[in-house]
Amino acid sequence: MSWNRFFATAFVAVSILTISTGSFAQNIGKAKAERLEARIKALGEFGKNDDGGVDRVAYSDADKAGRTHIIAELEALNLDVRIDAAANIIARRNGSNNTLKPILFGSHIDSVPGGGNYDGPTGVMAAIEAIQLLNEAGHTTQHPLELVIFSNEEGGLVGSLAMTGKLKPDALNVVNASGRSIGDGTNFIGGNTDNLASAQVAPGTHEAFIELHIEQGGFLDQESLDIGVVEGIVGIGWWDVTIEGYANHGGTTQMNNRRDAMVSAAELTLAINKIANDLPGRQVATVGRIQAFPGAPNVIPGRVVMSLEIRDLEQEKIDQVYAAVEQAAKAIAAKNTTPIGFEYLDVASEPAPTDPRMRKIIENATQKMGYTYKHMPSGAGHDAQDMVHLAPTGMIFVPSVGGVSHSPNEFTTPEAMAKGTDVLVHTILAIDDGALNN
Amino acid sequence: MSWNRFFATAFVAVSILTISTGSFAQNIGKAKAERLEARIKALGEFGKNDDGGVDRVAYSDADKAGRTHIIAELEALNLDVRIDAAANIIARRNGSNNTLKPILFGSHIDSVPGGGNYDGPTGVMAAIEAIQLLNEAGHTTQHPLELVIFSNEEGGLVGSLAMTGKLKPDALNVVNASGRSIGDGTNFIGGNTDNLASAQVAPGTHEAFIELHIEQGGFLDQESLDIGVVEGIVGIGWWDVTIEGYANHGGTTQMNNRRDAMVSAAELTLAINKIANDLPGRQVATVGRIQAFPGAPNVIPGRVVMSLEIRDLEQEKIDQVYAAVEQAAKAIAAKNTTPIGFEYLDVASEPAPTDPRMRKIIENATQKMGYTYKHMPSGAGHDAQDMVHLAPTGMIFVPSVGGVSHSPNEFTTPEAMAKGTDVLVHTILAIDDGALNN
Repeated sequence: MSWNRFFATAFVAVSILTISTGSFAQNIGKAKAERLEARIKALGEFGKNDDGGVDRVAYSDADKAGRTHIIAELEALNLDVRIDAAANIIARRNGSNNTLKPILFGSHIDSVPGGGNYDGPTGVMAAIEAIQLLNEAGHTTQHPLELVIFSNEEGGLVGSLAMTGKLKPDALNVVNASGRSIGDGTNFIGGNTDNLASAQVAPGTHEAFIELHIEQGGFLDQESLDIGVVEGIVGIGWWDVTIEGYANHGGTTQMNNRRDAMVSAAELTLAINKIANDLPGRQVATVGRIQAFPGAPNVIPGRVVMSLEIRDLEQEKIDQVYAAVEQAAKAIAAKNTTPIGFEYLDVASEPAPTDPRMRKIIENATQKMGYTYKHMPSGAGHDAQDMVHLAPTGMIFVPSVGGVSHSPNEFTTPEAMAKGTDVLVHTILAIDDGALNN
Repeated sequence: MSWNRFFATAFVAVSILTISTGSFAQNIGKAKAERLEARIKALGEFGKNDDGGVDRVAYSDADKAGRTHIIAELEALNLDVRIDAAANIIARRNGSNNTLKPILFGSHIDSVPGGGNYDGPTGVMAAIEAIQLLNEAGHTTQHPLELVIFSNEEGGLVGSLAMTGKLKPDALNVVNASGRSIGDGTNFIGGNTDNLASAQVAPGTHEAFIELHIEQGGFLDQESLDIGVVEGIVGIGWWDVTIEGYANHGGTTQMNNRRDAMVSAAELTLAINKIANDLPGRQVATVGRIQAFPGAPNVIPGRVVMSLEIRDLEQEKIDQVYAAVEQAAKAIAAKNTTPIGFEYLDVASEPAPTDPRMRKIIENATQKMGYTYKHMPSGAGHDAQDMVHLAPTGMIFVPSVGGVSHSPNEFTTPEAMAKGTDVLVHTILAIDDGALNN
């Protein structure tokens, strides 16, 4: 709109003054909790379900409508909005020196099926609020700013993977809960898979990348802390574990004459839990899926297949947990005469540490605001784990009430979102002031 | 055939002599192993599968063809064959005094999907061999003899349940692996569901019922015994067990902050196994089916549903095991904050003890033949468990090699079948001589 363009010009004029004084950033207002909350609620109308959450799965009609709604908000803030070939939304605010690398920040707005209103949108609304605060203060950064909304985060970090050039061509055929494939869905929401390579971003293109996100765990909430300075995104090891017993009649086979795969699976499940619990550190291990074969109540299971997932910020720790699990499995297999095999699945991901300088900058911004914080890993995957390969990357966590996520019950208070936004703004400003080079 | 009718008349003439001497039974020949084996193999052609077993599920084309084949064998032995309204095949051999109650014996020929050649057919072939031995010896019993082949044993003891009048009308709508419902299938193989009540047999109609069957367990084989004198068919208690945890992100939820339904399910599975193992007695308990919800590798299960089946010859023991399991579940639920609920399913059955007089008669027949034996429960269900309500019932077990059943690998040696047949013949003769009244 021409009205917005007018103000944009005005802001640029003011920002020149900012640079010259070097202290204008102190006049940036604090984030407005009620505005963040209002934007969360407005977006929550798209894909709203009866449980109080959203079904805004990537590529769904709700996702497309939600994106249109957000693009209008971005344009209202006088940003130049474009959609790249991978359907990432990128909204640019020029800097005073557009030869400098853009500072990139953002998150996603797609949800899991039956998801909540905060996983993703919190980071996007914080980014929008940050832009609005800069606009209101009339502050133009030296670096251009780019606000990014990655496409299909929940379905495999599609948008950010495309930026790194690592999205596999096969992935385009994968159909998600929207009923559309990644390829068709990308085009449906404004991308162009014929030109997917154009979405690729060369390492070093951006000055930095910052993602604000809800913690999804319960640490910050339990310890009443405002901010999590994310040390990195944990790596994930994923195995299918197969326990072989001997299927036999559950009525005629006496207890001391069984090779019951289910009993061995139970012993292994407890061993996995104990290993992950007992080792020092923050590793986690989960058995989330299990199936017994043939699966009849009156047949002793001859085979059980279950999943094993191990996560940690360090690959060595993942390896250490797995080695201990494998050793426990060997003992159980021998004791019960039920061979146990592990199949490593290639869907796993490596740990993605954030940039130590970025952590320090976020920590300083938090301290400057007088907010409480801790350093912590991200147990969940995020687009940031792809972005670490492209730019110095940092992540800011805000508390999830009760540690709940991927649920209609996920919640982050407006005040907590506002504090996170303040840290985001001051992180951007510090980077703009050259903090990465200090 | 008229040729057979001629011999039948001749046998009746001879049998009168038998009664008068009271010792003619000594001239009955021993069962012929090769003849039993040949009949097993001939039937095995119907529904034969690539694994070396059979798919002769009740109501399938293979079941119907197999029944036609067996009916021809029965008629060749000069029996009067009829099919009752429940599609049970009943083949009668008149006695010298047809006002006496018939002695009933038999088993079934239908298989489970992917079943073997011995579960069911062994008892039917033994019954046919018994008739043939009597024919060859020219021995006519005082009581009429009736050989029964029950319909759809594997799909819920349908034929014998119909005889007791306890087959529920709803059951007729249940479709089995043949693709036919019990109602349609019964009619397909020669029954008449419009007249199902006519299949009902009043208690006291028969002098006795005897079923020979493979053990399906490994006791006789392990202990190198010839015969199992069956004390009764175990009762079955069946529950669905639901463990409630809290579904949460497997990456962001630390180990000490989980309410993992899968971990509690594993603890309960091991507790069930230990309880059934540790109590004195022959009770068994099995967890054969399990499902975790939502069932994703990266989500801590918020709910696990698993089956619990407990079997014993005494209802009190089933109750005792269940009470111990329930107590263990309470402790696990409290420790892990994962409520555990038990839903009793009405598919269970009560213990069905055999008649003590029948056990003694079978034991005497076994001793007379010089065969080794033991008294034992049947862990599997059999038509005999319905027949206990209609007549003094006995069961004869022959060894299953390796205790394998419901598998293409189930096997009983021809010699073992022959020994079982000898015991069957001499049990019939003893009953015919009034042993039940001694």
